[in-house]
Amino acid sequence: MSGPATRRSVVLRRRPAGSPRPEDFDIREDAIPEPGPDEVVTRTIWLSIDPYMRGRVSDRKSYAPSVQIGEVMTGETVGEVVASAAHAFSPGDIVVGARGWQTHSVSPAARLTRIDRYGPPISAYLGVLGMPGTTAYSGMIDIGRPKKGETVVVSAASGAVGSVAGQLAKRAGARVVGIAGRPDKCLFVQDELGFDDCVDHRALDLKAELAAACPHGIDVYWENVGGRVQQAAFELLNPFARVVMCGMVSQYNDAEFPPGPNLGFVVGRRVLIQGMIVSDKPERFAEWRALAAPWVADGTLRYREDEIDGLENAPAALAGILGGRNFGKLLVRVGLDPV
Amino acid sequence: MSGPATRRSVVLRRRPAGSPRPEDFDIREDAIPEPGPDEVVTRTIWLSIDPYMRGRVSDRKSYAPSVQIGEVMTGETVGEVVASAAHAFSPGDIVVGARGWQTHSVSPAARLTRIDRYGPPISAYLGVLGMPGTTAYSGMIDIGRPKKGETVVVSAASGAVGSVAGQLAKRAGARVVGIAGRPDKCLFVQDELGFDDCVDHRALDLKAELAAACPHGIDVYWENVGGRVQQAAFELLNPFARVVMCGMVSQYNDAEFPPGPNLGFVVGRRVLIQGMIVSDKPERFAEWRALAAPWVADGTLRYREDEIDGLENAPAALAGILGGRNFGKLLVRVGLDPV
Repeated sequence: MSGPATRRSVVLRRRPAGSPRPEDFDIREDAIPEPGPDEVVTRTIWLSIDPYMRGRVSDRKSYAPSVQIGEVMTGETVGEVVASAAHAFSPGDIVVGARGWQTHSVSPAARLTRIDRYGPPISAYLGVLGMPGTTAYSGMIDIGRPKKGETVVVSAASGAVGSVAGQLAKRAGARVVGIAGRPDKCLFVQDELGFDDCVDHRALDLKAELAAACPHGIDVYWENVGGRVQQAAFELLNPFARVVMCGMVSQYNDAEFPPGPNLGFVVGRRVLIQGMIVSDKPERFAEWRALAAPWVADGTLRYREDEIDGLENAPAALAGILGGRNFGKLLVRVGLDPV
Repeated sequence: MSGPATRRSVVLRRRPAGSPRPEDFDIREDAIPEPGPDEVVTRTIWLSIDPYMRGRVSDRKSYAPSVQIGEVMTGETVGEVVASAAHAFSPGDIVVGARGWQTHSVSPAARLTRIDRYGPPISAYLGVLGMPGTTAYSGMIDIGRPKKGETVVVSAASGAVGSVAGQLAKRAGARVVGIAGRPDKCLFVQDELGFDDCVDHRALDLKAELAAACPHGIDVYWENVGGRVQQAAFELLNPFARVVMCGMVSQYNDAEFPPGPNLGFVVGRRVLIQGMIVSDKPERFAEWRALAAPWVADGTLRYREDEIDGLENAPAALAGILGGRNFGKLLVRVGLDPV
């Protein structure tokens, strides 16, 4: 194994109160382990930063275990195999997996998926072709089910999940309206992603602007944010509308959650509101990659990446995504591209 | 046509503010019409009083049109054919239909369903075998889908819908916990309906009592009431729980709706919350009658009726059901049983 003998890892020092801060984490340095039987050592090239990570540093009960104090932060990565004791992998292979916030990882071979280094950009496997893209695909086919002529509203529309969710709804023939947090994001959502309209959620009268953008009401609402955006969207839901509950990032830093919308309308309008976690259907990852890789290659599935340099900046990146300061899929560059 | 020459009808005088009062309605008397081609004249025996009727006297937009000022109140009835110009019906036939708050109705034959006068008690076609029973059946097979060993919680458990919903969940092998509004109702729910437990929603610490009755959380919640009962039930929902949104009677008299529960938990617990209106699947009525009539006959499907005498008391009956003062399926006796 060539290269450095030590690695750096970001470990949780204490549970953040409110928005995570760099001081809530430590950088730990230790020797890069040798791979055990059927294990692989990788060097991380890209680390994905996603809103769900706020739940992992909290001790609130959730669908996945919390990161414990002193443990390495969890996260999806793309890396290069630098040493292998598994017959399925060789040095130089590019792999994707949930290998955490560190420069080098030791992984059981079964936890890694090899990707084609000569296909789409390898970073795409953390966004449009990775967990966020698969989330959008899974939620739309299982819950949203947009039909031709329906109106689909997607919150956090310029983000990694929302951008794919909206483009899938466009492919299904729906009128698609995004909600995003800055004028330049709204422009991107319309001009680059091809949504029919986009509303800035910081509008003074969000309800009126969203209503104007949805003259026939809302048939599918993709929920990424919660709060006043949810309130505005719920009021416009049509009979038999579907709400894909993917996230409520506006409250991830809150210690106490605000009340939600009165649900009386759900009965009379026969609305369906359903939560989802992409990992419940792991088979969807390969299914989506196979479906979407040609669309990425031919440019009909658009995406945008927002890169931050250096593993040590991952904590600040997490705070940024929770505050909506990223623009597109947020990635931390941890190592150089493969030669 | 024998019998009286005039009929009485309850018409809406003005839209109620808060709980409906008798002064919000008028009694109108007019001549009983002759049936036109393919029409039938019936005399009403039983009138069903149901919480949804509060929506009909409001001008809030809903899934069904409001009753207009001066119009006869809508409602399901069981009656006897007294005159027929339709070949499918003869005097003496017992029929069920949505024929309104009146002693006699003229109906297109297609709006009536003949029932077997020698089968279950004819009033059952307004409750356990009628719209409320079909609602319970439809909601449980489409949304609730209780499985053996799961915990099912049913609010308004002694009522016309809740009593059937819970018994269906028992048949599916679930542990069933009712929520009802008085100790005698709770006793009935356990001893007569066979639920495993029942919690009085006026308990000082409703959340703690419900939690104690559901040591393994809640997999299916049948929502009839909303408010603090909803709040308590939602906190106990398990991963992949289903919520059948059938009604929220606690707020039907409210001009302004209170806020609801924060929905953050829906994502991580992949909860499904879905509204339903029984009339969306009209084929279910006959399906349910065929399935349940033998259970009523052999006593394995239990129900309780609460009778109020006289059409003129229907407005007070409506106020009563909205305040939870009925005990079982609420019926107004409008005319004598068939001889």
